[in-house]
Amino acid sequence: MTIKDTTTIRVRFNETDPLGIVWHGNYISYFEEGREAFGRKHSLSYLDIKNNGYVTPIVESFSRHKLPLKYGDVATIETTFEDVPAAKMIFTYKIFNAEGKVVCLGRTIQVFVEVNGDLSLNLPSFFKAWKKKVGLIK
Amino acid sequence: MTIKDTTTIRVRFNETDPLGIVWHGNYISYFEEGREAFGRKHSLSYLDIKNNGYVTPIVESFSRHKLPLKYGDVATIETTFEDVPAAKMIFTYKIFNAEGKVVCLGRTIQVFVEVNGDLSLNLPSFFKAWKKKVGLIK
Amino acid sequence: MTIKDTTTIRVRFNETDPLGIVWHGNYISYFEEGREAFGRKHSLSYLDIKNNGYVTPIVESFSRHKLPLKYGDVATIETTFEDVPAAKMIFTYKIFNAEGKVVCLGRTIQVFVEVNGDLSLNLPSFFKAWKKKVGLIK
Amino acid sequence: MTIKDTTTIRVRFNETDPLGIVWHGNYISYFEEGREAFGRKHSLSYLDIKNNGYVTPIVESFSRHKLPLKYGDVATIETTFEDVPAAKMIFTYKIFNAEGKVVCLGRTIQVFVEVNGDLSLNLPSFFKAWKKKVGLIK
Repeated sequence: MTIKDTTTIRVRFNETDPLGIVWHGNYISYFEEGREAFGRKHSLSYLDIKNNGYVTPIVESFSRHKLPLKYGDVATIETTFEDVPAAKMIFTYKIFNAEGKVVCLGRTIQVFVEVNGDLSLNLPSFFKAWKKKVGLIK
Repeated sequence: MTIKDTTTIRVRFNETDPLGIVWHGNYISYFEEGREAFGRKHSLSYLDIKNNGYVTPIVESFSRHKLPLKYGDVATIETTFEDVPAAKMIFTYKIFNAEGKVVCLGRTIQVFVEVNGDLSLNLPSFFKAWKKKVGLIK
Repeated sequence: MTIKDTTTIRVRFNETDPLGIVWHGNYISYFEEGREAFGRKHSLSYLDIKNNGYVTPIVESFSRHKLPLKYGDVATIETTFEDVPAAKMIFTYKIFNAEGKVVCLGRTIQVFVEVNGDLSLNLPSFFKAWKKKVGLIK
Repeated sequence: MTIKDTTTIRVRFNETDPLGIVWHGNYISYFEEGREAFGRKHSLSYLDIKNNGYVTPIVESFSRHKLPLKYGDVATIETTFEDVPAAKMIFTYKIFNAEGKVVCLGRTIQVFVEVNGDLSLNLPSFFKAWKKKVGLIK
């Protein structure tokens, strides 16, 4: 099961490179924009998680680039929460240009780390409660 | 066959996040540092390639994070050119902290695009010559 | 005489530093956001200017920091075009936090450079026309 | 009285913009490179100061741009500590290109903030000791 959300960004001048297109590393920032917009809507943002005593560092990040974005372009980020049983958060991303064409695909994997620095091997209880609330588990 | 090179970076203050560690997206910039240091040594930098009439946009990027880097840390980037027959450049990266532990693994894939914007499906002749020069083909 | 415009930004995670606040250098990016939002509204954006055969590099930049912004904060950028007779564009910026308090003041100065690289010592005609249109000169 | 130090940087690809030159906001990062290189040499870096119970946020920042830097350029940052009696740190910066020409001038002002968040109106004792050590006061 998945949950989706979309948000819109406008390419900033300083995100583009001498080729006149968005420098590929900046898509990682767009993924974060998408993930946090998702998080604000579904109460799973960085601050929500932190308030529950956890941080969720990225342990893996992937991006595939299909088309460029230029300065001033408006793009839509579709962020999908990919449900897995492990103590991880997996998000996938599709970024569309104004014509609706896919410019970039991505995926990030996050783990749960407690305030004391310990990696959480089990689902944190707040996260289990969240999954229930949004209908991913019963 | 592969060719390797290493370079050293020092973590900048503005590359770190509220957790006090390098923000994951900045590793993409470290990969570029490694790739360009490799390129300057082996005559395969962005400018070398551009002077031959090509640009090589990143079409895929991957990073796996194992340990954090903090502000002021000095890290070593080991960049490896992974030879493939296709008209692509594949680099892999290992970033080590000062204790020699792997903090991050990465991989990027680049394609060749001609000045007129056309994707090159065959090995550009300058690149074939480069492969010969460094001993990857005869 | 001046012309004002406001736009809103949300602080990104990767814009904050180990102190948990926006790294001071990122305000330069916020100024650009304000200036470009102004430009899109009043037909004086980077792309508008470029279409008229000019680029307008920043030759001076100033910021004064009064209060911090934290991750997730929403801030308002008030951008003011400060009319001067010289062949320059001067913008001033006031950034307000959600409580309406000033967090940052700024100013940038830009000059006009022609496509061939020459600095324009006189008002470009498109810019003179723009000033007329918005009522700054007759 | 002043104390000077120099350090060298190489322009990164992702620091340049569609005009092929370093985006002006990135000079703030270069100033920080210069200031921290100075700090490491003279025991006044971010971490030295933090170990003494203070942080030193930037309250003012200024840059004047005279010439562009391009991708791959190597530049020298000359950082000067400008001694003032107030509880402030003022640094000025001169950035030179490979031909020795000034490309950018800058200045930053920092204040001392205690761990508890209080602004320090008097010279912190560690800073007074530092000034003695480097010969700025007796």
